[in-house]
Amino acid sequence: MDGVVALPAFPVVLVTIGRNIITVGAFHFYSFDPPSVMIGIKPKHYSHGLLAQAGEFAVNIPLAAQLEQVELCGELSGRDADKFEQTGFTPIPAVKINAMLIGECPVNLECRVVHRVAHPGSHEWFVGEVVAVHIDSGYTRDDALMFWLGQFRAVGGLIKGKPNDLLFNH
Amino acid sequence: MDGVVALPAFPVVLVTIGRNIITVGAFHFYSFDPPSVMIGIKPKHYSHGLLAQAGEFAVNIPLAAQLEQVELCGELSGRDADKFEQTGFTPIPAVKINAMLIGECPVNLECRVVHRVAHPGSHEWFVGEVVAVHIDSGYTRDDALMFWLGQFRAVGGLIKGKPNDLLFNH
Repeated sequence: MDGVVALPAFPVVLVTIGRNIITVGAFHFYSFDPPSVMIGIKPKHYSHGLLAQAGEFAVNIPLAAQLEQVELCGELSGRDADKFEQTGFTPIPAVKINAMLIGECPVNLECRVVHRVAHPGSHEWFVGEVVAVHIDSGYTRDDALMFWLGQFRAVGGLIKGKPNDLLFNH
Repeated sequence: MDGVVALPAFPVVLVTIGRNIITVGAFHFYSFDPPSVMIGIKPKHYSHGLLAQAGEFAVNIPLAAQLEQVELCGELSGRDADKFEQTGFTPIPAVKINAMLIGECPVNLECRVVHRVAHPGSHEWFVGEVVAVHIDSGYTRDDALMFWLGQFRAVGGLIKGKPNDLLFNH
């Protein structure tokens, strides 16, 4: 794990599968066309079986201010707890998939599983095509939360590039 | 691409294939055990064919201060330019694979391709098992460079977690 620990930080997201919520640090885009993302889940986790069965999930991008709820969703198991009740988050029915979105998260991506990566490892990666998108009008990238092995971080400051208001068409 | 543009930032890395250098924003870990990473490359790019043929690559994590070289490696094609010469970077032979490492980058991960993700999209993702690791003694996660569609960023400040000096065994 030596080398992997050297990576700086990745977005941490809350993934909803049905009414369950899991905290996922293994998350990236997969393709721009069609727009797709991917998430990695340990096969032994309860949520892995849920996702394999459901075949759809939502990515909810939390605010840095929601760190406490992000940690809670990472610690509790959906076997034992209703995480919407535990966190106080508001469940909002998704439009195109059968799952709850987290009302307090500024970005929700509704996804259908289109591929499972067939190579063994600590995680199994699921590719999901984005079939619906909800972005709060006030959201910018600065609001999100980053994580990697042992450290939660803010999104870093802009060094070079477009200002946030040129990135989104709200 | 609406939803994908909302993602905050990911590490941007320099990937060497033989003596070519490419800038890769599509990069994540794949598995802790065995330690593996993955990179996404557009099939139309020159480097895609190089990687498919070589079957091995190195991930070089650049410093935020190397932004100029990172941009240069993203703009030039390896078809036309020797990017070590263009950037002034020092090529260092890898130990376990047949590729050059970038001497000025504080982290180098030598990887062998063990899987290509068989689902179409704008990118093809290559999974590489990490077979050798080099980390400069002074490196911390704060030194790295982040990127996502249109914006280069610093690594964000620590909100909660271990200090950097507890993460690495230099």
